[in-house]
Amino acid sequence: MKNYSTSLDNVFHALADPTRRAVIAKLGRGSASIKELAEPFGLGLPTFLKHIKVLESSGLIASEKVGRVRTCKLKRGNLSTAQKWFDEQRKAWESRYKNLDNLLTTLKGEEDES
Amino acid sequence: MKNYSTSLDNVFHALADPTRRAVIAKLGRGSASIKELAEPFGLGLPTFLKHIKVLESSGLIASEKVGRVRTCKLKRGNLSTAQKWFDEQRKAWESRYKNLDNLLTTLKGEEDES
Repeated sequence: MKNYSTSLDNVFHALADPTRRAVIAKLGRGSASIKELAEPFGLGLPTFLKHIKVLESSGLIASEKVGRVRTCKLKRGNLSTAQKWFDEQRKAWESRYKNLDNLLTTLKGEEDES
Repeated sequence: MKNYSTSLDNVFHALADPTRRAVIAKLGRGSASIKELAEPFGLGLPTFLKHIKVLESSGLIASEKVGRVRTCKLKRGNLSTAQKWFDEQRKAWESRYKNLDNLLTTLKGEEDES
């Protein structure tokens, strides 16, 4: 449970930045080299590599160096963990609203009977 | 678009902490006073109020003071915005995998014909 929570901390922290979200979105369409990923942002390479490091330590992406080219790919597992957290919240609200609905129906029934 | 991005930054930053996620989960089951929310965490009130402030400025919760009691409630809009971001990523992967599937089917067809 602690690992799950730490993993969510890291994933949400990684996603709290537009550059990192754009990298995730791009990798969702296929693996890419650091150079290809960095191009649209006009950031210095050291700054961009810091973003890549945050994404790697959150477990959202992995990278591999072949020759002189480092290629990044998406690791969907941790992104799914975060998505599941949202699904759990949604389920909780839905069941709450269902309970409220049931209560209103019961109250309405009692009102009609009186 | 900029507002959407800033709002996602704030929401993901707010969710990158276990105490704040627990507050969101609790408010999903109904509104609650600051006192009720703070109880399970054993944090000092000033520290807990900092978490509440982060949640409020991210637009995930709202609070209202009536008499001496401040009550918090969930604002589902911004949480849905973040959830939509995940849905968009999932759609992108799915369409990518569908394209790969189509490609494999085409290649297989060509192989069978040759």
